Amino acid sequence: MAGLTGGDPSLLRRINSAVVLHALRATDCATLTEITRVTGLSRPTVEGVVEGLIEAGLVVETAADEGTARRQGRPARRFRFRAEAGHLLGLEIGPHRVAALLSDLDGRVIGAQAKDVGVDAPADERLERLRTAVAELLRRAGVARGSLRAVGAATPGIVEADGTVRLGTALPGWTGLSLGERLSRSFKCPVLVENDANAAAVAEHWKGAATESDDVVFVLAGLSPGAGALIGGRLHRGYGGAAGEIGALHLMGQDVTPETLLSTTDEPLHPLDEQAVAQVFAEAREGDRRARAAVERFTQRLVHDVTALVLALDPELVVVGGWAAGLDGVLEPLRLELARYCLRPPRVALSLLGEAAVATGALRLALDHVEEQLFAVEGATARR
Amino acid sequence: MAGLTGGDPSLLRRINSAVVLHALRATDCATLTEITRVTGLSRPTVEGVVEGLIEAGLVVETAADEGTARRQGRPARRFRFRAEAGHLLGLEIGPHRVAALLSDLDGRVIGAQAKDVGVDAPADERLERLRTAVAELLRRAGVARGSLRAVGAATPGIVEADGTVRLGTALPGWTGLSLGERLSRSFKCPVLVENDANAAAVAEHWKGAATESDDVVFVLAGLSPGAGALIGGRLHRGYGGAAGEIGALHLMGQDVTPETLLSTTDEPLHPLDEQAVAQVFAEAREGDRRARAAVERFTQRLVHDVTALVLALDPELVVVGGWAAGLDGVLEPLRLELARYCLRPPRVALSLLGEAAVATGALRLALDHVEEQLFAVEGATARR
Repeated sequence: MAGLTGGDPSLLRRINSAVVLHALRATDCATLTEITRVTGLSRPTVEGVVEGLIEAGLVVETAADEGTARRQGRPARRFRFRAEAGHLLGLEIGPHRVAALLSDLDGRVIGAQAKDVGVDAPADERLERLRTAVAELLRRAGVARGSLRAVGAATPGIVEADGTVRLGTALPGWTGLSLGERLSRSFKCPVLVENDANAAAVAEHWKGAATESDDVVFVLAGLSPGAGALIGGRLHRGYGGAAGEIGALHLMGQDVTPETLLSTTDEPLHPLDEQAVAQVFAEAREGDRRARAAVERFTQRLVHDVTALVLALDPELVVVGGWAAGLDGVLEPLRLELARYCLRPPRVALSLLGEAAVATGALRLALDHVEEQLFAVEGATARR
Repeated sequence: MAGLTGGDPSLLRRINSAVVLHALRATDCATLTEITRVTGLSRPTVEGVVEGLIEAGLVVETAADEGTARRQGRPARRFRFRAEAGHLLGLEIGPHRVAALLSDLDGRVIGAQAKDVGVDAPADERLERLRTAVAELLRRAGVARGSLRAVGAATPGIVEADGTVRLGTALPGWTGLSLGERLSRSFKCPVLVENDANAAAVAEHWKGAATESDDVVFVLAGLSPGAGALIGGRLHRGYGGAAGEIGALHLMGQDVTPETLLSTTDEPLHPLDEQAVAQVFAEAREGDRRARAAVERFTQRLVHDVTALVLALDPELVVVGGWAAGLDGVLEPLRLELARYCLRPPRVALSLLGEAAVATGALRLALDHVEEQLFAVEGATARR
């Protein structure tokens, strides 16, 4: 790549800095000569940029390699990206539990903490449980709060750009909650809030079942399923952040609610009682007639909703996650129905990340934010 | 804007040329001083670029304004973009008719031609009708075929990137047809092929009901509806070009086909018989019981399909088009149901372009292609 010259000097410094950082991060460590070759920048430019990055604490000179020293008489200086220069948190705030993942600036997870929380717990209690989990996680890992560069948080509901939950019926006191603002009180760094299915889609694309595809629908199966979609590798949130909230579709023109759909008695299930749901799936596997019928109804509903998503979006891949138990039985009916009704049926896969998907996605969103700041070169595009 | 300097000189020439052309195209005509001010380029750079554009036939010096001449002693030279330097075609290839729109390089329509064609006409006959329409249109407008810079064509079915129809059940002999290649035989310029609902979405965004929104779902209502979606102002085609082909959704778990849904007898309608459909709508308006029931069934189906699209995509606006007759009665039920089932209901509007939408969208796609070539400055972005 040719280095850009002329124009706004501070912008060019930032671009060159991003280019060098990008090159260093892709390797263990590198000499100035290697950086010069990879980036196409001049030697003096690279020297100046590396000096600046060392001052900023993002790059460090590593000990000289002895072999190199012997061959060349004097050792070539080698530099590496300091992934330990900052840390990131990925938070899941769910109906049953809160969870936190801690990583370095390379996104390498160095600690995790989760806590159960009551389905009916009010917002304050849920957030307090989360704060406790985060405090324990940081203490155990020996990471200072001030080292955090960004925090991602994922939760059910429609989340607005400012981190407010526009609508969140799954958690008590969630609708209207300024979740971003509430979380920000605990951190000095930026806090990003995202819908849980959206975060899970990002996670599966990062290190789960969707690493090979940029056009993915992730279905967070539940009594009322939600979905997150990546289009061209980017999260599709929709105009109002409500994209993929497909759960209402099956209600149209029907009196049946999801709670009765999967019930084997005439009593509705609690919409968030995963144990009761797992029980029904288990009974169905053992051949119980009513349980089989209930699972059949549930599967049909899920298949219908996923088909609607697939017809609308035409993804390459559908990843099904959410409940740990029972979901593998959904894949085959889903494949069959998609093949039947979709003009171009997508591949179907089970989540690889399981219950870690939501927090992992939140962590990735925090990492994206930091990478944008460190490596962004958008300022360099010609503006019309 | 500051002019970029240094780097690849031919790239910079191209960028500067695009910037000047962009500025000239936004105005009637301009002096070198005005262009210099608007673009931020230096006077000598602007002079050189304008000279080059005149040689390329894209810019012409206009007659000097007398007032200016008198005041300044000698007239300031004025220049304008030559929109007449090239032409574009937008083609619709539908079940009942083929249509062509002709425009200049500003996208201003200077002629139109349409021809009826039988629903059952084989592919060769349909394409021959189109060729005849195009030939008549060019002759009447006095435009030479060699003046065409790009041709857009829109048609039902899933269209692949190379212009092949992957699946097109609405037209005989359409599935597997190398439509782009077949059309290219008639033209020396690039030919772009697109799905009809996608093209209509682009058209409504350009000069129809969706000019104010970048997140739009266009529903091409019919016995089996199709849809096109813009996300952030860009067409969402899906991984395999099948996004929005929602028509199969209502078939799931039901024995009813669209042809019987809107029938007032027990005989299915011909899926493409718009007259029969218009007749049912008219009878319903006059109070006929069976017709009202049929329209009710049809509306419910459409509403369900559109709701699925809206839940999946979360657009700001839904535009309903397709059949000219009867559709206005669909809007109110659609609004009501969307408000009921969508967490964030979109606005709903009727198509403003009517049956011109598809060809207009095809024209816009041709214009996009030419603008990319004339005005693209992507090459100037920093590559990582």
